[in-house]
Amino acid sequence: MTHPKRADTSAPLHPLLAERWSPRSFDPSHQLDDSDLHPLLEAARWAPSANNSQPWRFLVTRRGGDDFTRLHAALNPGNQAWAGAASALLLVAAHTVDEAGRPRPYALYDTGQAVAHLAVQAQAHGLALHQMGGFDAAAVRDAFGLDATLTPVVVVALGRVDAPERLPAPLAERERTPRQRHALDSLLLAPAPAVASA
Amino acid sequence: MTHPKRADTSAPLHPLLAERWSPRSFDPSHQLDDSDLHPLLEAARWAPSANNSQPWRFLVTRRGGDDFTRLHAALNPGNQAWAGAASALLLVAAHTVDEAGRPRPYALYDTGQAVAHLAVQAQAHGLALHQMGGFDAAAVRDAFGLDATLTPVVVVALGRVDAPERLPAPLAERERTPRQRHALDSLLLAPAPAVASA
Repeated sequence: MTHPKRADTSAPLHPLLAERWSPRSFDPSHQLDDSDLHPLLEAARWAPSANNSQPWRFLVTRRGGDDFTRLHAALNPGNQAWAGAASALLLVAAHTVDEAGRPRPYALYDTGQAVAHLAVQAQAHGLALHQMGGFDAAAVRDAFGLDATLTPVVVVALGRVDAPERLPAPLAERERTPRQRHALDSLLLAPAPAVASA
Repeated sequence: MTHPKRADTSAPLHPLLAERWSPRSFDPSHQLDDSDLHPLLEAARWAPSANNSQPWRFLVTRRGGDDFTRLHAALNPGNQAWAGAASALLLVAAHTVDEAGRPRPYALYDTGQAVAHLAVQAQAHGLALHQMGGFDAAAVRDAFGLDATLTPVVVVALGRVDAPERLPAPLAERERTPRQRHALDSLLLAPAPAVASA
């Protein structure tokens, strides 16, 4: 069976990539065990980073816990509408400045790679995640007492995908829409011709 | 056989992640065919991004071509020493501002995810990549006539791993050193206790 969210790729991709997508419909009865969570965090841990700086940090909250409720409350209303069914909400933060306050220009880039690794490992465990930029970063900083060198980056909803019917109508429809991307050609830069030196 | 660069993980990872690393020793006889390159770019194409903005762009150069020589010349000397043996050098850029000049705060984060997908797909094809922040971004911008909304992010060396012996002595030694990461516990944030409301 071809899942409607399987990427319509112009070349065959590894199934862990082709079948990955960002659901909004999560199974509200699924519990995330430590044994499922640990490899996901471990996958993020082994991502590459500039000078091996490893700027990513994670705050893990699980549905039913007070931390989860606090993190959920900081989401934009559009995300609150569905993310409460996730098994876990992870706050992903990055050390965007070093101990001396100097910017780390690759902190966000590297953190993106770490979460991508986490997503691939999740896919290997039959789990899925949905990354959200739509949350109140200042509220999160206050709620969880984040260090000043840490920047909240995304909140990740993590869990087991459920049928779209569980969602309210407009979201359910969106859940069934095929995924789309720019054409590959439009992502490729054509270099300017080399200028002959005088 | 356990490869010395296989990650010493605290939980089993999918082999595509556990065996991924960033070599400096590339096989200077390996040619990257279009059929090998295409799925890698396609994997990047299907990465998730904020509001599906897909800010990543790629400039592909292959060893032996003039573009490769120009991109190689913009690398820091420490990277020039080994990266010339790669089959391809990819300039990865991101649309860090939109058409109206407004910043796109997730452009670097999303681009990191796209390159992580590319790396996983490369691993599935028996290829490896090494991402470099060490290059002259202004020189790259000039050399390739990049649009003002595009920011050069990394240069990726891509190819087939070769024996470390091909490298000069200090680099060869580094190639054999086990990979290291912070302990998982140190990546986990402990939330401050919730403050009871008055």
